[in-house]
Amino acid sequence: MRALELRAFDGKPESLAFVERAVPRPGQGQVLVRIAATPINPSDVMFLRGMYIKKPLPVIAGFEGSGIVVAAGSGFMPRLLMGKRVACAAPYNGDGTWAEYMLTSANFCIPLRKNISLEQGASLIVNPLTAWALMEIAKRGRHRAVVQTAAASALGRMILRLAKRFGIPVINVVRRQEQIDLLQGLGAQYALNSNAPNFDDDLKKLCHDLQATLAFDAVAGEMTNRILQAMPKQGRIIIYGALSEQGCLLDPRAFIFDDKHVEGFWLSTWLQNRNPINRVRTAMQMQKFLATDLKTEIRARLPLKEAANGLEQYTGGMTEGKILFIPNPNLV
Amino acid sequence: MRALELRAFDGKPESLAFVERAVPRPGQGQVLVRIAATPINPSDVMFLRGMYIKKPLPVIAGFEGSGIVVAAGSGFMPRLLMGKRVACAAPYNGDGTWAEYMLTSANFCIPLRKNISLEQGASLIVNPLTAWALMEIAKRGRHRAVVQTAAASALGRMILRLAKRFGIPVINVVRRQEQIDLLQGLGAQYALNSNAPNFDDDLKKLCHDLQATLAFDAVAGEMTNRILQAMPKQGRIIIYGALSEQGCLLDPRAFIFDDKHVEGFWLSTWLQNRNPINRVRTAMQMQKFLATDLKTEIRARLPLKEAANGLEQYTGGMTEGKILFIPNPNLV
Repeated sequence: MRALELRAFDGKPESLAFVERAVPRPGQGQVLVRIAATPINPSDVMFLRGMYIKKPLPVIAGFEGSGIVVAAGSGFMPRLLMGKRVACAAPYNGDGTWAEYMLTSANFCIPLRKNISLEQGASLIVNPLTAWALMEIAKRGRHRAVVQTAAASALGRMILRLAKRFGIPVINVVRRQEQIDLLQGLGAQYALNSNAPNFDDDLKKLCHDLQATLAFDAVAGEMTNRILQAMPKQGRIIIYGALSEQGCLLDPRAFIFDDKHVEGFWLSTWLQNRNPINRVRTAMQMQKFLATDLKTEIRARLPLKEAANGLEQYTGGMTEGKILFIPNPNLV
Repeated sequence: MRALELRAFDGKPESLAFVERAVPRPGQGQVLVRIAATPINPSDVMFLRGMYIKKPLPVIAGFEGSGIVVAAGSGFMPRLLMGKRVACAAPYNGDGTWAEYMLTSANFCIPLRKNISLEQGASLIVNPLTAWALMEIAKRGRHRAVVQTAAASALGRMILRLAKRFGIPVINVVRRQEQIDLLQGLGAQYALNSNAPNFDDDLKKLCHDLQATLAFDAVAGEMTNRILQAMPKQGRIIIYGALSEQGCLLDPRAFIFDDKHVEGFWLSTWLQNRNPINRVRTAMQMQKFLATDLKTEIRARLPLKEAANGLEQYTGGMTEGKILFIPNPNLV
């Protein structure tokens, strides 16, 4: 099979090689997925540069995709999935989705509903499931409003639309005026530019007026403390990304006197902490919104061998839609 | 009445004036306490310097003390406390304990058991109740071991002794070898010097070996991240002080990938979140240990007018025992 193999965590195009590999065989609890489509996500870009989790090298890159289960190891779940169209996530420590085939745990596969195409299913896990999981936290915690940073990202827009459906106001934080225009076009009621002179005061007023006691932060760095300071007492920040690539310098008094919390979210942890039935139920329920609130825009479709070109296009404008690799063109 | 009135948050001795004030009268839900003894705590020193909470100036300083309820406003609790010996905390936003009399909410008073002297009762709230509350969090969360910074402080030693009683191992972090000796003399099994060259590795190994998933941090600043990095996954840090007077520079990856949490503890918040019966029950139970695990060493007793002298002595060696002001010498 052909695959994109990462050889060094340095972000150089030549460190991601287009190679020939043997097709692996599923063991107990595993399935072999013939990959139909697999996107480039921000976490992939971070991974290639060594800024995300680290797997032993060399390793096939790619964290999610879609395809057809063509071989199953022993176990109930693998047998159940055999022949099915699935969305799939890469194993924690092994080869990923940027290949013609991927071996993964049956627990990391989600059967696709009939009306979901393999192209849509390719981006089902990383963004839509994260948006769904975060909004579930907002609902369960009965938060009256939420703040989110990097709000113009694909994930940010999903959160915005889901929150609207669930009737939870969102304070959207972005870095440029054009992103405010974009979000307002999508129906955002509250959008603030963190580079505006009155940002901190405006954010604080909005957070208090709306009682925004939950924040989803994809930026980290100094942004986290600005949000922390702006939130009302008992505010809780969930960091799920670190786009700034900086540490968070946080004022300890916000924790001590204002009972604020900082914690994290990682989809792998979230998935692990659910039982399989609950996980599949959530994933099936969430797919109902995949064509609307959780829609992923697709900008381009490329064969695996054009990885360097795809990555360059993608990093040139990360909010303009996904780039999909199509390892097996006859499947989509 | 005579009192120590703070006029500026600058830490200068002349900003804390020995003055004459009218004795206030209790309103609804309030009591007037004739103060027997009132300590200097680290939070007082921080308060005088403007590094702790800020009350409108001028204000009588002092956050806790003991005394006798000599007047009661309307309400069940005030009437119940009339004539009683109590430990008492200052109201959030009004005059404090460094005076001959203090007006406070009846909810901020704890009746003293017969065998507790007014001198012991003067330091019942800030340190012993905090130690008790923190260990309660450790027990309820079923943490197998805890880490604490500033472990040689009066509060740190209480945590150490209580934890021993409850069978929870404590990893004690201090800054000097002599503090390690002191803690080992008190029976500490694990004590690390954060200035030692192998500190981070040693701490990480201990945290993982003992499964220390909870930390009590009184230091903040860079110490918080060192603890955060050392703890196993799902580690939770509770910041209850900021002795370093620095912000915490935290690695966002610890939140995202390792599911770690940072939050705070403030006794006022903890007390507010309990119902009055539960609060009194906890406080009465805790008093059983006031002569042993939660004992406060007393170094000196001074009249209010020697405030400057007392503060100088105290800041010269904060771990050597409490300095008490005795506003009414005939009571103790």
